[in-house]
Amino acid sequence: MAVASVAPLDRARADQLSFCGSAKYAPLMAASAAGVVLVSPQTADLPSPAAARIVVPNPHDALLSLIPRFYRLPERTPGVHPTAVIGRGVVMGEAPSIGPHAVIEAGAVLGDRVTIDANTTVGAQARLGDDVHLYPNVTVYANARLGRRVTVHAGARIGSDGFGYVFRDGRHAKIPHVGGCLIEDDVEIGANTTIDRGSIDDTVIGAGTKIDNLVQIGHNVRVGRLCLLMSQVGVAGSVRVEDGCILAGQVGVSGHHTIGKGATLAAQAGVFGDIPAGETWSGYPARPHKEALRAQAALFKLPGLLRRIERLLARSEDDA
Amino acid sequence: MAVASVAPLDRARADQLSFCGSAKYAPLMAASAAGVVLVSPQTADLPSPAAARIVVPNPHDALLSLIPRFYRLPERTPGVHPTAVIGRGVVMGEAPSIGPHAVIEAGAVLGDRVTIDANTTVGAQARLGDDVHLYPNVTVYANARLGRRVTVHAGARIGSDGFGYVFRDGRHAKIPHVGGCLIEDDVEIGANTTIDRGSIDDTVIGAGTKIDNLVQIGHNVRVGRLCLLMSQVGVAGSVRVEDGCILAGQVGVSGHHTIGKGATLAAQAGVFGDIPAGETWSGYPARPHKEALRAQAALFKLPGLLRRIERLLARSEDDA
Amino acid sequence: MAVASVAPLDRARADQLSFCGSAKYAPLMAASAAGVVLVSPQTADLPSPAAARIVVPNPHDALLSLIPRFYRLPERTPGVHPTAVIGRGVVMGEAPSIGPHAVIEAGAVLGDRVTIDANTTVGAQARLGDDVHLYPNVTVYANARLGRRVTVHAGARIGSDGFGYVFRDGRHAKIPHVGGCLIEDDVEIGANTTIDRGSIDDTVIGAGTKIDNLVQIGHNVRVGRLCLLMSQVGVAGSVRVEDGCILAGQVGVSGHHTIGKGATLAAQAGVFGDIPAGETWSGYPARPHKEALRAQAALFKLPGLLRRIERLLARSEDDA
Repeated sequence: MAVASVAPLDRARADQLSFCGSAKYAPLMAASAAGVVLVSPQTADLPSPAAARIVVPNPHDALLSLIPRFYRLPERTPGVHPTAVIGRGVVMGEAPSIGPHAVIEAGAVLGDRVTIDANTTVGAQARLGDDVHLYPNVTVYANARLGRRVTVHAGARIGSDGFGYVFRDGRHAKIPHVGGCLIEDDVEIGANTTIDRGSIDDTVIGAGTKIDNLVQIGHNVRVGRLCLLMSQVGVAGSVRVEDGCILAGQVGVSGHHTIGKGATLAAQAGVFGDIPAGETWSGYPARPHKEALRAQAALFKLPGLLRRIERLLARSEDDA
Repeated sequence: MAVASVAPLDRARADQLSFCGSAKYAPLMAASAAGVVLVSPQTADLPSPAAARIVVPNPHDALLSLIPRFYRLPERTPGVHPTAVIGRGVVMGEAPSIGPHAVIEAGAVLGDRVTIDANTTVGAQARLGDDVHLYPNVTVYANARLGRRVTVHAGARIGSDGFGYVFRDGRHAKIPHVGGCLIEDDVEIGANTTIDRGSIDDTVIGAGTKIDNLVQIGHNVRVGRLCLLMSQVGVAGSVRVEDGCILAGQVGVSGHHTIGKGATLAAQAGVFGDIPAGETWSGYPARPHKEALRAQAALFKLPGLLRRIERLLARSEDDA
Repeated sequence: MAVASVAPLDRARADQLSFCGSAKYAPLMAASAAGVVLVSPQTADLPSPAAARIVVPNPHDALLSLIPRFYRLPERTPGVHPTAVIGRGVVMGEAPSIGPHAVIEAGAVLGDRVTIDANTTVGAQARLGDDVHLYPNVTVYANARLGRRVTVHAGARIGSDGFGYVFRDGRHAKIPHVGGCLIEDDVEIGANTTIDRGSIDDTVIGAGTKIDNLVQIGHNVRVGRLCLLMSQVGVAGSVRVEDGCILAGQVGVSGHHTIGKGATLAAQAGVFGDIPAGETWSGYPARPHKEALRAQAALFKLPGLLRRIERLLARSEDDA
């Protein structure tokens, strides 16, 4: 019994490995053509035609170790493509990989083993740590600083001007943005995400934080370590997101608030105040999740009661 | 009476054609300087100073046929610009049009009449079908597959890594993404939209589906045929959107749910469960549209009743 | 006492200037190491170890004048980089600054002192006014017109096709987009924002309007003068936003409505109708802000009352 790749239960063939982490997938497992299935103690005895099953504590986690054995991940090829444009005074570390039409402006400083893909632009005086990978068509603005092992997906913009104006003499006068944009070690940034530089303070993304696609981080925001910001989240200026927070998809946080350590915001939550550490909030405007659920449940009962209430009110106020 | 171009009623000149599809535009039609107006049977008799009116079943649809007669749409010019970088082993079909500074990485395979505009990057081993058009500054990641007549607008990212981590040893360990990204025939993808590749499964966009700007499609999502996804929609990982669905602007769908065939989600809907086929849902959390409207109507009556209710409760509970 | 740069109270050193505009920052001011603090008449007497304080009417506004004295803003360097590709018939004004790998397609017309950064693409026949600045990796589609002093941040897309289809013969037939995209003087457009061209009419952004990152402007939209559109706002097709409106983050406006002059929409508002001039609306669906607040307050009282109401209804309907 040999398997050569990995596939979900409903798509796997006899030469593929699959996984079943929950009894709710029992029908898929019973019908799966997978040759080998990773199972948990809870799913170990589910019916399955597979030639072999392997019991592990958590099949999904086990995959994390197995995938690199089945798939050769792309290797980086050191070298500077002849069409790349390297500005005056750029400092390169060891073994850079600079793709076609990449542009590195004057004075930028690169660590070792930096990868800069095709059509990406790195602004003047920017600093990229060891093992940074910028995918194609990225922009790093002048003076932005990226730590070690930072990965930036295609089309992300790091260090753009924030949105700050003062209305004066009949026009919106722009506040010059002279603050920095600091991305700490081991941060991953999704495709087409935008992270503004600070106005006078810095914008900071803490070490180990992961940011999904199309996220907006405003000026002077400080995101702590090990946070997860999912797709289309918007964080307005000067917000503090403390360590270990989770912001689910399309969450919006208005300016100058603090999201306490380890807090979770459910998808589409609209935050207009501080969030206490460790709590889960949801809804618009965001409230503690249980309170929000109770309010929603009550709301959907309301139409059925309203006529009865109005009748009762009319009757009893006539009486009074 | 000759007309040379098309304009809306309130802007048309005597040498322009306009259209009036609804009686609510009667004031605009009465005041319009348009030389010719397309009208429907319902608007045929509205007062108008136009030299001519033409009755058609649906003026807006008729425009679809007329516009190509008035406007010469830009023609593609075959050729490979000398600044384009074509990697080793790239296979080109007939009559490619490759713009300045486009980059096509090693092993990519292009069908006939493919257009790749300026500063666009196509990753290694990617496959583009006949008549694909990639606008400027697009990124197609390695191994992504695009069918025939797929159009991708500027800045869209196809096949980026999904957002998947396992928390282990005090850090978010990345799940390697080895699944594919498959865009079927006749799909159009808007500017700055992002579509992630699958983790081990594929992400698939079905034939004839149209996706607007700034939309996010997560890993392993399957969108069916002939769907419409409007701007800023976010679809989280492993969601199934069946054929013919309409997701209006800023809709969010959380992970692993199914949007049934032909369902419609109203703008800003927040979906946290499966949606039955053919139904229209709206609101947060999304509910059947009529139910959501009733709840909203009740909600806005509530403040006016609340004091009366509280008084009545106090009185009657005193009595009890 | 000399200061060399600007920093917020909690980060300033002895050689830095800071500012305190509100008494709520008194603790920060008392603990700040800043050498000089700008204060308002209201904060002038707060305790502070600073060597000097300077009283101004509004410290934040005063910064606007001071920042350019402390920071040398980057200077533009005229010149056309040898790797830039300039199409046939392009007209350049005085002192252009065209970066590496920029592409300007045939027939584009540039005013004086235009700056086009690296990897940016300007389409055929586009027109850019004097002092336009396009940051890196921007796309201006063919025929778009930008006024004087327009600034476009990295990755923005100006003049892409709108999202318009007619369902016919079992497919979504595309409506050819032949309208224009006109950005008037002094507009600033944020990173990765998308502005569609009109279908037959024009899309217009009025003079002095400022648009943040990741905003979507649909086809035929007309935004007036001096508006502020914050991050992730979505404006659907044919909407009119009159002069001086403020749309806060993640607001969505559905198609064909009018936002009256000087109106404000609070963050995440969902607009499904016209908004009267000068009013502030919020929530989903958007309502006058005070009404929306009252409804929310009532909603969160409802769960606590519901059981009592149901008991009362049961009792009184038994009686009846």
